[in-house]
Amino acid sequence: MRTAQLRAFFLAAAALSLWTATAGQGGPPHVAIAIHGGAGTILKADMTPEKEAAYRSKLAEAVAKGYELLKEGRSSVDAVEASIEVLEDSPLFNAGKGAVFTSAGTNELDAAVMDGATLKAGAVASVRHVKNPISLARLVMEKSPHVLLVGEGAEAFAKRCGMKLVSRSYFYTEHRWQQLQDAKKQAKDAEKQPAQHSPRVHGTVGCVALDGAGHLAAGTSTGGLTNKWPGRVGDTPIIGAGTYADDATCAVSATGQGEYFMRGVVAHDVSALMAYKGLPVAQAARSVIHDKLSKLGGTGGLIAMDARGNVAVSFNTEGMFRATTDGDGKPVVEMYGENGP
Amino acid sequence: MRTAQLRAFFLAAAALSLWTATAGQGGPPHVAIAIHGGAGTILKADMTPEKEAAYRSKLAEAVAKGYELLKEGRSSVDAVEASIEVLEDSPLFNAGKGAVFTSAGTNELDAAVMDGATLKAGAVASVRHVKNPISLARLVMEKSPHVLLVGEGAEAFAKRCGMKLVSRSYFYTEHRWQQLQDAKKQAKDAEKQPAQHSPRVHGTVGCVALDGAGHLAAGTSTGGLTNKWPGRVGDTPIIGAGTYADDATCAVSATGQGEYFMRGVVAHDVSALMAYKGLPVAQAARSVIHDKLSKLGGTGGLIAMDARGNVAVSFNTEGMFRATTDGDGKPVVEMYGENGP
Repeated sequence: MRTAQLRAFFLAAAALSLWTATAGQGGPPHVAIAIHGGAGTILKADMTPEKEAAYRSKLAEAVAKGYELLKEGRSSVDAVEASIEVLEDSPLFNAGKGAVFTSAGTNELDAAVMDGATLKAGAVASVRHVKNPISLARLVMEKSPHVLLVGEGAEAFAKRCGMKLVSRSYFYTEHRWQQLQDAKKQAKDAEKQPAQHSPRVHGTVGCVALDGAGHLAAGTSTGGLTNKWPGRVGDTPIIGAGTYADDATCAVSATGQGEYFMRGVVAHDVSALMAYKGLPVAQAARSVIHDKLSKLGGTGGLIAMDARGNVAVSFNTEGMFRATTDGDGKPVVEMYGENGP
Repeated sequence: MRTAQLRAFFLAAAALSLWTATAGQGGPPHVAIAIHGGAGTILKADMTPEKEAAYRSKLAEAVAKGYELLKEGRSSVDAVEASIEVLEDSPLFNAGKGAVFTSAGTNELDAAVMDGATLKAGAVASVRHVKNPISLARLVMEKSPHVLLVGEGAEAFAKRCGMKLVSRSYFYTEHRWQQLQDAKKQAKDAEKQPAQHSPRVHGTVGCVALDGAGHLAAGTSTGGLTNKWPGRVGDTPIIGAGTYADDATCAVSATGQGEYFMRGVVAHDVSALMAYKGLPVAQAARSVIHDKLSKLGGTGGLIAMDARGNVAVSFNTEGMFRATTDGDGKPVVEMYGENGP
């Protein structure tokens, strides 16, 4: 190892320990929660104090919402859904209300949830009229015989469940529309060079939680990539790629260049390293992101939680929006990171 | 272990050794190929000699086609595509021409291919007008920046690639239509009780291959489940669930109750057991199907091949249509199995 690499490694390890400590390690069974709001080029220099405060406030609200439910004795699946709904309803993140636009000027949303106790899972992809895709994913898990429903079939199921669909205009935000125009300018021919390769921020949102009964859950929700082709599905709704939970190992939610996370089967790989090599969650997460994903050429990150509530976060981008709670249940929000934890 | 279990175990081990031996073990680098045409209640008692001959002949043709290409020095991806195309063009299997019907009386096809040398992958889901979904999956892998395209977006991409779409009527077969009517009769309300739980045969097709350059590839293609909900996507096009390939471990193609294969991330799990626990391919395949999938409550099977061309087949159903080649390159077709190898 060269000196620079060694330095980076120890910085990363230090950052990780701090983060892990805030989640509360060891001791009696407890509840725990962590969320993310995407990874990417999050630089202090680019942030205004107002913008940073808005992100911090919404992340704190979302993690507090899930934590509160866990403290009331509700399930980890309840907490994951509730926390993600808060983020989906905010225009700040690329999920729900703030979803990015496809090359056709539409919004196509993906989401998944997995229950670590039963290995049951539900997911939706390419839905255009669903305000909270995470809730529809949960309905797929609990009320359908299937795991993944896409497009109009998923929306027909939503209607059968009594879910009110929203019009396309619900997802219109000036900010995201402008991002599409910028992306199109950059790629004259959107169909040959979609702007997937270096999006500044992957704004996918996700949550992992451990409830008082000792069960893990994970969920993820996204609008995908700005200027993606219609019909493109990323890693978010793919069980094992962007979302995975198993009480025997961990719960994982990822964010990043979805195609690389799919090819790497990233979320399941973290679990497999724990199950088959006995790695602790932090080491498994770091190995998958820093060794394997980086080697494939992909960028992004993930949050993971083991069955004792230890939280790991790992990313190979400059920052990642994330939050957990401290020993007193108070939100701890982070967004920057040196060399990534 | 009870005596019956012990007996089953040794029968299974014996069946597996025979099958593995036919693929040619050890020795210098060589090419190898194996295909499957689905797993399920395949009983000699249900087969007429004509029907059995038709299956045997088509499986032999398909495996010979891929083997021939490999012998000519073509890539494992070429062989996988060519073998699967033969099966897609036959009405005997639940893929391409012989695809089953959804509860809405439509045909929605899924397919995926993965290149073990690069970990590149391509997949399509819920396409209704594509004669050979495996070829479209390959185009996604090679000509798009994405891994998975669904529905109309996938078909728009097919058109941009110059692929001729077929009309819905291409997929009409009396046999499959009758199966839908039978399934609907069984489940008065198709939306509450789709006939997924005990289909007699999961007719998905798949192929794994090793080329002369030492590279693995895997591919899978399916019409899904008879009477499935429109928009339902199973394990076939999910990288890590129904399809996976990595030169460092193995190539895998699965068939069965897709929802269980997705929840188990079955194909990647076989690879992970080889990578992290050092299991040989046959043992990894057996463990995932007989220990893990069975425990989840799912039925089906898979074929897997390691980087030396050793073939493993494992299923917890009564039979599985499958073929490989012997030491002289001649097709070896099997369809029954006691307790599954």
